[in-house]
Amino acid sequence: MEKLYEGKAKILYPEGENLRVYFKDEATAFNAQKRGLIPGKGVVNNKVSSALFRYLQAHGIKTHFIRELSDREMLVKRVEIVPLEVILRYRAAGSFAKRYGVEEGTPLRAPLVEFSLKSDALGDPLICENAILALGLAEERELSEIRATTLKVGELLRAFFAERGLDLWDFKLEFGRHGGEILLADEISPDTMRLRKNGEPLDKDRFRRDLGGVEEAYQEVLKRVLGE
Amino acid sequence: MEKLYEGKAKILYPEGENLRVYFKDEATAFNAQKRGLIPGKGVVNNKVSSALFRYLQAHGIKTHFIRELSDREMLVKRVEIVPLEVILRYRAAGSFAKRYGVEEGTPLRAPLVEFSLKSDALGDPLICENAILALGLAEERELSEIRATTLKVGELLRAFFAERGLDLWDFKLEFGRHGGEILLADEISPDTMRLRKNGEPLDKDRFRRDLGGVEEAYQEVLKRVLGE
Ligand SMILES: Nc1ncnc2c1ncn2[C@@H]1O[C@H](COP(=O)(O)OP(=O)(O)O)[C@@H](O)[C@H]1O
Ligand SMILES: Nc1ncnc2c1ncn2[C@@H]1O[C@H](COP(=O)(O)OP(=O)(O)O)[C@@H](O)[C@H]1O
Ligand SMILES: [Mg+2]
Ligand SMILES: [Mg+2]
Repeated sequence: MEKLYEGKAKILYPEGENLRVYFKDEATAFNAQKRGLIPGKGVVNNKVSSALFRYLQAHGIKTHFIRELSDREMLVKRVEIVPLEVILRYRAAGSFAKRYGVEEGTPLRAPLVEFSLKSDALGDPLICENAILALGLAEERELSEIRATTLKVGELLRAFFAERGLDLWDFKLEFGRHGGEILLADEISPDTMRLRKNGEPLDKDRFRRDLGGVEEAYQEVLKRVLGE
Repeated sequence: MEKLYEGKAKILYPEGENLRVYFKDEATAFNAQKRGLIPGKGVVNNKVSSALFRYLQAHGIKTHFIRELSDREMLVKRVEIVPLEVILRYRAAGSFAKRYGVEEGTPLRAPLVEFSLKSDALGDPLICENAILALGLAEERELSEIRATTLKVGELLRAFFAERGLDLWDFKLEFGRHGGEILLADEISPDTMRLRKNGEPLDKDRFRRDLGGVEEAYQEVLKRVLGE
């Protein structure tokens, strides 16, 4: 079957008017300057994403998710991706902590929604809401909905992981346009979240920062998400 | 007289409860990676800033400006600087154009207020309003006032320069706290604005981009500002 697109972590195949998403084990970090393989990551990310999309849908969030097709594949509605990475932060970490010289893990006064322009060529630069509007990347109405949905997703995910003994520090979402609606799209996985167990990373930070035990961390997140 | 602070372009001396600001000829660009001298710049920037502060004050803007003391010196109220560079953009240029891959000079749909954290060590990183609040750099009330004042200053400066045959593309402001008020502070000069005459830069871009005729451009701005 012909690929529609191969990205850093997933491959998209057309499936009628929908898309089949295949999750790879390849990992990248720091705008793809660091590359590697995390065996089993594709399976974990597909299963974790599927479980989280189901959970969020059950709580009123509109997503692209249709169903799991196999260990590494899900079926989703094909959307027109809004070219933004939408980040919700509960604690300062990663690029945010470095950019502003704040200590990793510092709690923020309130959940902070941050946007970056999804562009590998430009290095996914930070972009503020008025610049998003000025450049015509999204309409004001879309942006409000994306912000509100992100905050709601955050509350739901924080509660979900707290019940499973994990602390969600931040996560990244992507949204798409589909028949006049805005749908939550892409993935929600240890690649796109910072999850801490008693302060210890159980997410891509183990890969980014060469902490070891990367595969095990991904497997543990999967176990906890599935409630095993 | 002992210096209170020496920055990249100015020196501050205590003067009772006020400050004497001395304008230097030294020029820096790209976070001080590029350095040089623009003979006469200090005089131009002092006189242009003084004239613009007077004009803005006459139109209801509260500023730190008290009076011109000499060719290179002005007397100002000493404020507690809000650690933000506040940029108002009418056209994409400089760091904004580069960051988002937009062509230099592209008009923006609406005037765009942008903030960066004033920190040489961190390279003055872009910061969005919710991050300013989350990090406690300014109160919500202060931020609203800064944004509103910046837009008003923009309208006044656009009109001022349009009358003098110059097109204002963008400019940078700094604000300070003084006895419960927010005052416009620092300078407003060809160092901190992009001014175009039929598309030709008459500002620090001539220095940044090695266009030649730097001194002449500064002198021409001064002449036009003074209406000579
Ligand atoms: N439902 C969808 N419809 C269309 N495109 C999608 C959908 N969900 C995710 N995408 C896009 O598919 C790509 C997923 O592959 P990924 O490996 O993450 O790519 P990238 O390297 O661009 O992040 C992303 O570009 C993402 O924006
Ligand atoms: N009224 C004021 N009171 C106190 N500080 C001021 C005032 N106006 C400007 N400043 C500060 O004085 C310094 C001016 O010198 P400058 O050479 O521009 O320094 P810098 O290299 O830090 O930009 C700036 O740090 C600016 O924030
Ligand atoms: Mg991706
Ligand atoms: Mg300065």
